Amino acid sequence: MNQVRIGIVGMGNMGWGHAKYLTEGKVKGAVLTAVSDLFESKRRQAKETFGEGLATFESAEELFASGLVDAVLVATPHYDHPECAILAFRHGLHVLVEKPAGVYTKQVRLMNEAAAASGKVFSIMYNQRTNPIYMKLRDLIASGELGEIRRTNWIITNWYRSQSYYNSGGWRATWAGEGGGVLINQDPHQLDLWQWTIGMMPTRVRAFCHFGKYRDIEVEDDVTAYVEYANGATGVFVTTTGEAPGTNRFEVTGDRGKIVIEDGKLTFWRLRVSEPEFNATYTGGFGQPECWKCDIPIHGTSPEHMGITQNFVDAILNGAPLIAPGEEGIKGLTLSNAMHLSTWTDNWVDLPIDEELYYELLQERIRASTFKKPEASGDKVLSVGGTFNS
Amino acid sequence: MNQVRIGIVGMGNMGWGHAKYLTEGKVKGAVLTAVSDLFESKRRQAKETFGEGLATFESAEELFASGLVDAVLVATPHYDHPECAILAFRHGLHVLVEKPAGVYTKQVRLMNEAAAASGKVFSIMYNQRTNPIYMKLRDLIASGELGEIRRTNWIITNWYRSQSYYNSGGWRATWAGEGGGVLINQDPHQLDLWQWTIGMMPTRVRAFCHFGKYRDIEVEDDVTAYVEYANGATGVFVTTTGEAPGTNRFEVTGDRGKIVIEDGKLTFWRLRVSEPEFNATYTGGFGQPECWKCDIPIHGTSPEHMGITQNFVDAILNGAPLIAPGEEGIKGLTLSNAMHLSTWTDNWVDLPIDEELYYELLQERIRASTFKKPEASGDKVLSVGGTFNS
Repeated sequence: MNQVRIGIVGMGNMGWGHAKYLTEGKVKGAVLTAVSDLFESKRRQAKETFGEGLATFESAEELFASGLVDAVLVATPHYDHPECAILAFRHGLHVLVEKPAGVYTKQVRLMNEAAAASGKVFSIMYNQRTNPIYMKLRDLIASGELGEIRRTNWIITNWYRSQSYYNSGGWRATWAGEGGGVLINQDPHQLDLWQWTIGMMPTRVRAFCHFGKYRDIEVEDDVTAYVEYANGATGVFVTTTGEAPGTNRFEVTGDRGKIVIEDGKLTFWRLRVSEPEFNATYTGGFGQPECWKCDIPIHGTSPEHMGITQNFVDAILNGAPLIAPGEEGIKGLTLSNAMHLSTWTDNWVDLPIDEELYYELLQERIRASTFKKPEASGDKVLSVGGTFNS
Repeated sequence: MNQVRIGIVGMGNMGWGHAKYLTEGKVKGAVLTAVSDLFESKRRQAKETFGEGLATFESAEELFASGLVDAVLVATPHYDHPECAILAFRHGLHVLVEKPAGVYTKQVRLMNEAAAASGKVFSIMYNQRTNPIYMKLRDLIASGELGEIRRTNWIITNWYRSQSYYNSGGWRATWAGEGGGVLINQDPHQLDLWQWTIGMMPTRVRAFCHFGKYRDIEVEDDVTAYVEYANGATGVFVTTTGEAPGTNRFEVTGDRGKIVIEDGKLTFWRLRVSEPEFNATYTGGFGQPECWKCDIPIHGTSPEHMGITQNFVDAILNGAPLIAPGEEGIKGLTLSNAMHLSTWTDNWVDLPIDEELYYELLQERIRASTFKKPEASGDKVLSVGGTFNS
């Protein structure tokens, strides 16, 4: 194979964007051959925009069975990601799934099992893993420059969403439609990067979600979470869609200093000797290790979604190592699920979470939902250009 | 009266500093006439340094009964603050108490009652209330510029303390000697400013203290606390003595924007219209309120401890309003006690806290203490010049 024929399932905001760069030839070795969408209007619009040669299908299964694709990009609503991916694996297709991996880890675990059984390439659209600034942070930690991790602190509150955003689709911000709010919709990248950059998942979580605090919605729009890691480190994650202008500041401390990513800059306060070494030998009472403030150069720009799609195609064609293996999607989702679960049970949640309990409590919320949007205005495709951190 | 005769109780690090600027004549209308200290060496040293005319006493009570002072500055170990202040009020003296107000709120409440009954001037050494940057923050909030408060977030981790610091006094960082760690020793100013600048105390606290995590001590040296306020706002307070170089960043968001104090600068991201107003009228889906990044000028320098002492003297002589009324010391201490209590009970703590329960659990820890410092080196007076944020 020297060209991967790609199909896109779901031509909403994200699917449309993927179709665009694929038809523009921006991913080497890939060609968009087919899309599927439940709406006839979307299928017609896709042909008009991307060419009459593009095959369109109403259902994902028709697309999978068409013989026109080697790989699929799953850009359906969140709940359908795992089911759709599992079906694609059964058809022998490679799968690149949009984030989040799914809504609850129980279904995502099934997806991961199907992927493993298929032997096909499986990736997830964690395009922020191609962002040079987070790659640099991961590098500094993995190479030991920061030493043993002691604390993480991410304030990611620049996800402002007005009520008119939530009203733009009846499924938005409902338990049945999306299965969560800011955690499942806006934060999947940060939840992934939070663990990917430091190379550690927490062992337990105590979180405080507020549901419909700032908007007329039933899911969480304001969250503070505290976590503990196996090595004794602690962490905080603060997020909301209700604040403007918000903050995006990620601080990680280690026993060799501190790194802060904010305003597109990475700053490393580097200790000349590690803190434990200083502490073991210092006898002067007050006093602290010598520290150098270092501005760390960040080279290149993020290839964003195209970068992940290119890597997915390269993995299929040449066995390139995946930047974002699909199986890792469960990590960020576990953090998100754990935050819900901790709030619902008003207690600690140990990881791995009790998947059955989470599923049950989520179903309770779906059944109990009587939510009617104040003035839901149907299915609008919003322009997302430049408005979000995905 | 046109001059206030001041006595200092306790000539440790802080008492010595107060004696110095008082004898240098830096507080108008005040004269240092007497000091007390349990150690003969300190009393002799005080006379040698500040003049043979300075009266010295072994006990606070002798000083109070001497007729040589109108007002006292209480700079004893934390536990003794309330008892010492109560005794001074009984002798008809004005009292300026060092921070923290005490170790547990039960005793501090008694001190406040004694102060009220005495009719004397009662202040607390919250000298950071004279810091122009925090005064400006309080002003911007009180005047409504920031709007309704939504979130507070203080990362105050630049309190690095090595093991040699803790070893410099056998009483340090023990339940019996100090009644706590970073919260009671390093953070009293920040705990006060956290509530004073925004004009709100939380209604409940969920905190995660770690005891002896980085140092061979029995009290907390690492804390993350989550709080909720009556108006729905939330807050986070993160502190430790174990990290270098640490961070001091205080972020407060309101429905008219965001303020961050860091690196000696106050920045106000000001929304042109309030967020609720924008949200109520915006119909465009994605989009957010227009925001102006404003560098706020900070005028003047902090008069620090002298400023509070001057204000205390002015209140005695001319009825000047107090910057830091002594009765308000219970607020920061309540936050500190609540964080301990939440950790000990592994649960929420509603404010006001259960003072009896806190007292009992503290006594349990004092009784259970078997703590021996690895190489306690007795009573050393450490030079504190420029090494801390007090």
